[in-house]
Amino acid sequence: MNIGVLGTGTVGQTIASRLVELGHSVTMGARQAGNENATAWAAAHHGRAGTFAEAAAFGALVINCTNGAGALDALAAAGEANLAGKVLIDVTNPLDFSAGMPPTLTVANTDSLAERIQAAYPATKVVKSLNTVTASVMVRPDTVPGDHVVFVAGEDAGAKEITRGLLGEFGWPEARVLDLGGIRAARGMEMYLPLWLSLYGALGVGAFNIAVHAAK
Amino acid sequence: MNIGVLGTGTVGQTIASRLVELGHSVTMGARQAGNENATAWAAAHHGRAGTFAEAAAFGALVINCTNGAGALDALAAAGEANLAGKVLIDVTNPLDFSAGMPPTLTVANTDSLAERIQAAYPATKVVKSLNTVTASVMVRPDTVPGDHVVFVAGEDAGAKEITRGLLGEFGWPEARVLDLGGIRAARGMEMYLPLWLSLYGALGVGAFNIAVHAAK
Repeated sequence: MNIGVLGTGTVGQTIASRLVELGHSVTMGARQAGNENATAWAAAHHGRAGTFAEAAAFGALVINCTNGAGALDALAAAGEANLAGKVLIDVTNPLDFSAGMPPTLTVANTDSLAERIQAAYPATKVVKSLNTVTASVMVRPDTVPGDHVVFVAGEDAGAKEITRGLLGEFGWPEARVLDLGGIRAARGMEMYLPLWLSLYGALGVGAFNIAVHAAK
Repeated sequence: MNIGVLGTGTVGQTIASRLVELGHSVTMGARQAGNENATAWAAAHHGRAGTFAEAAAFGALVINCTNGAGALDALAAAGEANLAGKVLIDVTNPLDFSAGMPPTLTVANTDSLAERIQAAYPATKVVKSLNTVTASVMVRPDTVPGDHVVFVAGEDAGAKEITRGLLGEFGWPEARVLDLGGIRAARGMEMYLPLWLSLYGALGVGAFNIAVHAAK
């Protein structure tokens, strides 16, 4: 599939590289043409580099891996027409580092970044997923032992199925992809971040995840 | 130990009953003397019923099981002098139902209920714990299979040790009690609630919990 990856940081590079490895064609989009990260990645991984708009136009599916605080600006640069009718998997966390470490969230509790994106792009099928694990675990869940889970949330059932398919390619077994419902459930997925950061501090390693066990 | 349990709802009743079963002496505190829930509980469980102030004065340790939205009022009624120098285990979630279901939080992101309580009662050793599981799992973790975990957060190491001891009595193995650090970590524990509510919806059962698996 042709996939546009918005963002050139660790998450964008990790996801884009794995997608190429799985046989997909990827354009990595950056704020400006000629972005060094994107150009270097494209050269090393038989991918393409371009602007946010070029990556969004290229993708039959688009993955938002931008800095959460800049996500809405990045999507505006990508362009409504380039996103319309497409599945947009939103992987970002709206981290606010303006008051130092640990970060707070730019939006929480009564709204979420994914809800804002869905509201701003009603013709785009937004699915929140993967934001609850570190980049390496997103694309290689078997690096963490046990029956740990990943979540999907969004309004469009078909878009969630496409997302589940991609998660399956990454290595997430069907039973470990939990559908939390509509896009509002992204709120809980984003608000999990402060607990994730505390666990990171307690464990001393970012490659971890949670399993969910219920009483029989 | 003499323990004061503030709150007469499901959480207060479940914890108070388990404490009596474990051999502790418990006074259940309510907003008003003669509260029906507290009186009935006391009669059925060889406990005592009283006001918030009486329960706090009685306890060498106090457990806050009040409605999160009313917690600060309840503690004001309990009285600063009755709480000073004591360990206060804060089990509450600051749920705001004013805009309907699902609830939001009355405080989040840049503050937490536990931080507010610690700031308001600096002579009290506040430990946030148990708020991430439903009442039945709090006091009988073995009703849920697997290596699922409970968290503690607070400024006072001794208070966290006392809390760990009580959690051990409830049935939480030492290795499954994760210390997340100072009271600020309560923020992540409280902000986990929206994800908990989504999982509750997806699983259809409240008796569940999360395990944390890390890469080797």
